[in-house]
Amino acid sequence: MAKKNLPLCPISRAAMILGSRWTTEILRELIDHESRRFQDIQEALIGIGPSTLSNRLKMLEDHGVVERRFYDDHPPRAEYVLTDKGRRMGPIFRAMRKWGSETAD
Amino acid sequence: MAKKNLPLCPISRAAMILGSRWTTEILRELIDHESRRFQDIQEALIGIGPSTLSNRLKMLEDHGVVERRFYDDHPPRAEYVLTDKGRRMGPIFRAMRKWGSETAD
Repeated sequence: MAKKNLPLCPISRAAMILGSRWTTEILRELIDHESRRFQDIQEALIGIGPSTLSNRLKMLEDHGVVERRFYDDHPPRAEYVLTDKGRRMGPIFRAMRKWGSETAD
Repeated sequence: MAKKNLPLCPISRAAMILGSRWTTEILRELIDHESRRFQDIQEALIGIGPSTLSNRLKMLEDHGVVERRFYDDHPPRAEYVLTDKGRRMGPIFRAMRKWGSETAD
């Protein structure tokens, strides 16, 4: 896990993970679906480029929020799932949604 | 209020406000103290430059989270305070802190 640039304050840490463009949308896909292939996420997120999606998934993996599972298929395929740590972000999402919808002025 | 680049999804909106470097630290200062002058915030946040602090405060003002109050003093001075909308971010902060402290591995 690449931890060297993580801020020490837990609030900043959560905010920096969630604040990168597309991160919340990617996590939303993985909350709504148990597992998603790269292509599934790309198709759901209109406008995201493959290199951006790849970078974001790598960042989420480095933070231990998302993990990649490989299946021994032909050709081999990978799926992305939330880790326990990723699922524990649910209350943050709900608080943000509540704030965002109360303050949509 | 500069709204043109705000994402429509309320979760992304909250995440993008909170995810900019230093934003959570600035809000923390304004939660802990009723009002803070520019200089107070700069002294509390070791390492932030004045132009970055100025940009972040402007961004928070544009989002309606922080407001600037002017006092008719000699010389005139300004203080920053949270708006109601800013104070309603409290539950997001608490959820992020809980997540960050549970997952500090």
